[in-house]
Amino acid sequence: MVTLKQIAEVLGISITTVSKALKEYPDVSKKTRKLVRETAAMLNYKPNSFAVNLRTKESKTIGLIIPEIMHHFFSSVVKGIISQAEKKGYLVITLQSSESYDLEKKQIDLLLSKRVDGILISLANGTADYKHLTQVIENETPLVMFDKIAKTVKCSKVIIDDRKAAYKATQHLINIGCKRIAHFRGPLLPQNSIDRFLGYKQALIDNHIPYDSTLVYLLNDMSFEEGKFFAKELLKDHKDVDGIFINTDLVAIGAITEFKKQKIKVPKQINIIGFSNWFMASVISPSLTTINQPGFEMGKKAFKLLYKEIKDKKRKKIISYKDVILETDLVIRESTKKNY
Amino acid sequence: MVTLKQIAEVLGISITTVSKALKEYPDVSKKTRKLVRETAAMLNYKPNSFAVNLRTKESKTIGLIIPEIMHHFFSSVVKGIISQAEKKGYLVITLQSSESYDLEKKQIDLLLSKRVDGILISLANGTADYKHLTQVIENETPLVMFDKIAKTVKCSKVIIDDRKAAYKATQHLINIGCKRIAHFRGPLLPQNSIDRFLGYKQALIDNHIPYDSTLVYLLNDMSFEEGKFFAKELLKDHKDVDGIFINTDLVAIGAITEFKKQKIKVPKQINIIGFSNWFMASVISPSLTTINQPGFEMGKKAFKLLYKEIKDKKRKKIISYKDVILETDLVIRESTKKNY
Repeated sequence: MVTLKQIAEVLGISITTVSKALKEYPDVSKKTRKLVRETAAMLNYKPNSFAVNLRTKESKTIGLIIPEIMHHFFSSVVKGIISQAEKKGYLVITLQSSESYDLEKKQIDLLLSKRVDGILISLANGTADYKHLTQVIENETPLVMFDKIAKTVKCSKVIIDDRKAAYKATQHLINIGCKRIAHFRGPLLPQNSIDRFLGYKQALIDNHIPYDSTLVYLLNDMSFEEGKFFAKELLKDHKDVDGIFINTDLVAIGAITEFKKQKIKVPKQINIIGFSNWFMASVISPSLTTINQPGFEMGKKAFKLLYKEIKDKKRKKIISYKDVILETDLVIRESTKKNY
Repeated sequence: MVTLKQIAEVLGISITTVSKALKEYPDVSKKTRKLVRETAAMLNYKPNSFAVNLRTKESKTIGLIIPEIMHHFFSSVVKGIISQAEKKGYLVITLQSSESYDLEKKQIDLLLSKRVDGILISLANGTADYKHLTQVIENETPLVMFDKIAKTVKCSKVIIDDRKAAYKATQHLINIGCKRIAHFRGPLLPQNSIDRFLGYKQALIDNHIPYDSTLVYLLNDMSFEEGKFFAKELLKDHKDVDGIFINTDLVAIGAITEFKKQKIKVPKQINIIGFSNWFMASVISPSLTTINQPGFEMGKKAFKLLYKEIKDKKRKKIISYKDVILETDLVIRESTKKNY
């Protein structure tokens, strides 16, 4: 690694002059500045970014915590974040909480101690206490939450209207003639699984379909295997169900797989709607009707909000928090009947 | 942000004493050290990690460059890397080259200027010049390549035997009776697409099946859409083809989708084998016969090698490079005939 000292020795000038020349100080002659720049380039000198960071108090890195990387939706969010971050010269430190509150807390501490310029987070399912998040804000580190958020934490958020989207999905099942509609819901804590459940329930009530809590199945890890398992349970418990609204596509694909195995016809016997619009949803058969959740746009928007806060903080402006709600739409495919 | 100065003021002692106490210097009394530690904890003091880094010359971060994040194989590699890095207290800066040599080069420069402790990389398809990589090694920053590697660069590598795996896939098509076997190959430059092509060709030769270059289709972006496109081309050009070995699952799934659309029966008319074993391969119909590529294990192994080099460098040991070749296996599903 080439140092300022080596450049100074090569040119026979002082280290201070080299340092000043590289910072384009006017008290070093233009000629010397040019010479130092060229020598530095020739020797492939790289400024020590930690020293630079100490000086500018900017790390030009942001932290990103997501529950899961191997996940179509989150990986599209990450892609959106990185696409914007690169444009602005920021590096992204990606960490995976694996849905664990303890890990998430530890990661927040790590990121703060690394003095990242800002943090983007989508909460773990296990997170019910938000002290680690308020700590970020008290620390004056910009924080933006997306997708799985804590409503009570005061910071900018990028979300979709989960309740509205779930209502739309359930309404569609009712429109095509479903009378007994089940719901595979997500875990108890995350706001998005609460909202999707409430949207489902509201659509039933508004259509004068009695709400039956035994038709709501509580999922834990939202996996393909859970989809198969609860499809099996449903067939045992409720032979009359003709529609299911499922919290996420991967689970819906598991359910379809089980129904195919048991020769239950989708959509003839059971109509299925998923949530997220994973790529996979379009290539399985029957292809899956689902709610399109704009992951890439969510990532882009979340970074943009964070970037603005970082800039505002630097200019000592007062930071105002924003709630951005992105639009979703229902993508109708083969897992639901065409006719009304 | 709490500073040493504030702790000093609270306790009415000098900043130097606070600093020494936090570093557990024996010239500060045990009692004072304890008091400082407790006060620091109470005030939620966090050491400035940039200053700590300057002192220890370790950043406890590593850089990771991959061609694509929204990709089943790479996201499983990332997961493997992160799982190991977390155990050792390392943060991972993940960057996406988007298959661009220029971006990859820029990212290497960025990571070096951030003084990461090591770099893990899977090359972009566009990378043919390796100066940016030899620069990392000359810079004495540990470097480990995985999956898409440059054979001539001297560093540790974690790969699979692509040629052997492709040979196995092609041999399986021959074993089940295929006579005219096409190959959808990857771009010209990456070593893995060269090796998969060579494995395909060798299997034909060893089985006395004449090699016909018109049966080899050169893909560019390896997308689902390309799979559909080349399936269409193949049906126009070669009606007699009864088997295809395809460079990656996503393309194979595109091809199957097109064949289904055109009422070509898979595997009755055309047998298909993919590569990678994406999750999707198991849930589409017909499910896809493919080569299982151990992404998670590859990520774990790559980090372990990098970690060893970082430690060896610290202890001023001579670093020895290792080539690790992970095992692959053929997963037989519905897209190939059962009978021999």
